[in-house]
Amino acid sequence: MKYRNPTPTVDVILQCNSKILMVKRKRDPFKDQLSLPGGFVNEGETIENAMKREAMEETSLEVEPIEILGAYSDPRRDPRKHTMTVVFVGIIVHGSPMAGDDAGSIEWIDLADIESKQFAFDHHMILRDYKKWKTSGGTFWSTKRRND
Amino acid sequence: MKYRNPTPTVDVILQCNSKILMVKRKRDPFKDQLSLPGGFVNEGETIENAMKREAMEETSLEVEPIEILGAYSDPRRDPRKHTMTVVFVGIIVHGSPMAGDDAGSIEWIDLADIESKQFAFDHHMILRDYKKWKTSGGTFWSTKRRND
Repeated sequence: MKYRNPTPTVDVILQCNSKILMVKRKRDPFKDQLSLPGGFVNEGETIENAMKREAMEETSLEVEPIEILGAYSDPRRDPRKHTMTVVFVGIIVHGSPMAGDDAGSIEWIDLADIESKQFAFDHHMILRDYKKWKTSGGTFWSTKRRND
Repeated sequence: MKYRNPTPTVDVILQCNSKILMVKRKRDPFKDQLSLPGGFVNEGETIENAMKREAMEETSLEVEPIEILGAYSDPRRDPRKHTMTVVFVGIIVHGSPMAGDDAGSIEWIDLADIESKQFAFDHHMILRDYKKWKTSGGTFWSTKRRND
């Protein structure tokens, strides 16, 4: 018997002053929409290394994890199949942001402006949770009770 | 092309006074060793629901997630295949602990005694991280630099 499981992905939040680094998606799903840098975790690779690899591929930046913001696994978060993501808060340790092969372009968005924008997947929820994390800490998951 | 990914699992830390609830494993790997309650995440199921389901199956307890302690994905953590786990800190909301079908027996271990004990998988590291979390918070992953 073959069990089926969600497919693990990773994402990273990189903040510089009031700005968050996003990538414009080159491909469907959510083509041309903004998402956090991230992607699938390969077998044999830790999630933290997957996060660093994806950040490098998509933004040309060397990043390091600082904390885990949360783990999001709502089956509807990706129209292709059931995925789950571990979201890291990271820091840029080297490089200048530049769109890589996997990203159409990169864009710095102001954290104050997220309510007026659309994002791929559940990244709107993740950015809201990050704002909350900045003031009160904590960790987050898809069905966590939120008071707003 | 078929990509291969780590298989997601969940675990939960349940503390009552100074004691942590562990289950004695009925099956290999790590047969007869102590592990945190947990198991594989099914497709279509959130990780938090997987955690609640596994806690119920293994300990007969209804639990709720409080925080995420970390996400551990060292490819060597499970001898069967590459797994990753999201570890929740939970609270017991209903029931009395009783070994379920999937667990040989349950055991409360003192958090002060973990250094003298052996645990399945990387649960020794996870329990150490939990002790740290109790005093200083934070989140954890397999290759995080630890100062001890």
